[in-house]
Amino acid sequence: VTAESEFSIIRELFAPLAKTAAGAFSLTDDVAAIDLENAVITKDLMIAGVHFRQKDPLDLVARKLMRVNISDLVSKGVRPAGYLLGCVWPANTDRAMIETFVSGLKQDQKAFKCHLLGGDTTRHRLKTGPLTLSATFYGPAPDGGIIRRSGANVGEDVYVTGTIGDGALGLRVLEAKLKVSEEDKAFLQDRYWLPQPRVTFGTALGSFATAAMDISDGLITDAGHLATQSEVGVSINLDNMPLSVAAHKWLQEERNKQSALEFLATGGDDYEILFTAPSSMRRSIHMASRASRTDVTRIGRTTREKIILVACGDKETEVKAGGFDHFSVS
Amino acid sequence: VTAESEFSIIRELFAPLAKTAAGAFSLTDDVAAIDLENAVITKDLMIAGVHFRQKDPLDLVARKLMRVNISDLVSKGVRPAGYLLGCVWPANTDRAMIETFVSGLKQDQKAFKCHLLGGDTTRHRLKTGPLTLSATFYGPAPDGGIIRRSGANVGEDVYVTGTIGDGALGLRVLEAKLKVSEEDKAFLQDRYWLPQPRVTFGTALGSFATAAMDISDGLITDAGHLATQSEVGVSINLDNMPLSVAAHKWLQEERNKQSALEFLATGGDDYEILFTAPSSMRRSIHMASRASRTDVTRIGRTTREKIILVACGDKETEVKAGGFDHFSVS
Repeated sequence: VTAESEFSIIRELFAPLAKTAAGAFSLTDDVAAIDLENAVITKDLMIAGVHFRQKDPLDLVARKLMRVNISDLVSKGVRPAGYLLGCVWPANTDRAMIETFVSGLKQDQKAFKCHLLGGDTTRHRLKTGPLTLSATFYGPAPDGGIIRRSGANVGEDVYVTGTIGDGALGLRVLEAKLKVSEEDKAFLQDRYWLPQPRVTFGTALGSFATAAMDISDGLITDAGHLATQSEVGVSINLDNMPLSVAAHKWLQEERNKQSALEFLATGGDDYEILFTAPSSMRRSIHMASRASRTDVTRIGRTTREKIILVACGDKETEVKAGGFDHFSVS
Repeated sequence: VTAESEFSIIRELFAPLAKTAAGAFSLTDDVAAIDLENAVITKDLMIAGVHFRQKDPLDLVARKLMRVNISDLVSKGVRPAGYLLGCVWPANTDRAMIETFVSGLKQDQKAFKCHLLGGDTTRHRLKTGPLTLSATFYGPAPDGGIIRRSGANVGEDVYVTGTIGDGALGLRVLEAKLKVSEEDKAFLQDRYWLPQPRVTFGTALGSFATAAMDISDGLITDAGHLATQSEVGVSINLDNMPLSVAAHKWLQEERNKQSALEFLATGGDDYEILFTAPSSMRRSIHMASRASRTDVTRIGRTTREKIILVACGDKETEVKAGGFDHFSVS
């Protein structure tokens, strides 16, 4: 593969993704122009073998890259507007593979109404060099400003959107470490491959949430991050954790329920929104949930004592902030 | 290495780089807030084994990452303001290595007056996973707008800043493929490790340049890109190509002068500015060169016929646009 074929790949495959963004200069220049007062920006990397599997379909990998970044924005009350993309392809990548990848980008650009602005594409010298992807997404700050991790107060409700643990189960299914029905398999692997950023609900966050973030490292770990930044503690009841039908079926068949719930609460790859709000906001949250058709579940409270307390059945476990060793999944 | 130690590395090593940027939230949140009103943005990746050597000192790698991105902005007339950083470390990276890397960032943040805004740091699962770096830099657009690749007209002068070919020679020295004096060795490898974005001269570009870009793929290749985007041809005289003392000494000892000049003109890793301007601007360019203490050399002309013509001694070679096969360096 010569350098020139990289240029033709940019021109023929990536430039069409940028044609709706004036500041992208059709990807013919070294830089892009953005005009956005009060922008919010985020950057997330994904590497084959770490953040996705070598065998994952490349259109889904592209969409996951977009959604992981969009999830960061959405959990702050921000809609995505545009992005820059960096790709490092394994040495033996052919054009058809890049076409598949680009078809995923195209699909989710449409779904999330955002445009490619620019970036960088190159190749590993070694065949073993893993596909490495990087995206920088931005969008306009909401009128009231973004919702930080640090705004929670003592005695507030703790909520999550959607269901928890499906992504972690999906990965186990894909790794053939878990056997489920064909229907559940399709659902769970889809939840691993395709996070669902709660864009519409996210834009409502500003009217009730005091703190918010997306769950990528696992519910318990990320609740710990939010609590640390807000200088509060948090108490979570795993019995209230929202589960999908597939996760619920899996749970029924596990002998050790507590350990199974902990797996779901620490598995990560959820990309749901974790947020806090005073109890006076319960009605507003219910309305926003209905209006955006996004399930929202109250799973705990913020506390004065700066610890993470996880209840499950009649058992309570204290998790050290910054530690979470008890919950490490092997 | 646990996830928690990644958090402490962000808090202890990277957060100090962000303390001067209000919108970075001390790297405690998922996003950063910036004002992108009339901003110019660029993104470049660097991978060990492709864009730098596995053995290169990590502080210099950090500075090269910054300078490669800053060079993109500067060649468009833009000063850098801030950046987002993505790092994927090999599995066996220790804290001391990251400290060295961060010391390089710190040094060049000061030199180029820009701030870390946010980003992402993670690890390869495999020891062989190469260090992969990605940066997104932005800065305010200049009053007259950026200087595009596409603005050159027929019959204009073609210029470069600094000297050409030192980076390519430096890499050969580092790879022990070329033996030079100790003094020249130090100079040439420094030119490979540390590009010198011509920031001050860059801010003057707007008053005379019709098209501009930085030279990363080699003078001839990048002149071809500029010509293609401007829909003109370009004629370059390699005898006028500015050379450092070290490159000049190397050239003297090469038997085949033309082939040696072609090596310098196609080696890449120059990160000098290539630009065009009408001949009426010669005096302004001379003044800007003196005021910014940046050498600027006229090396050719743009032409009506859309070809790349390279003169060397009494020989002229036509290079196919998009091809440059003649100049491929083995």
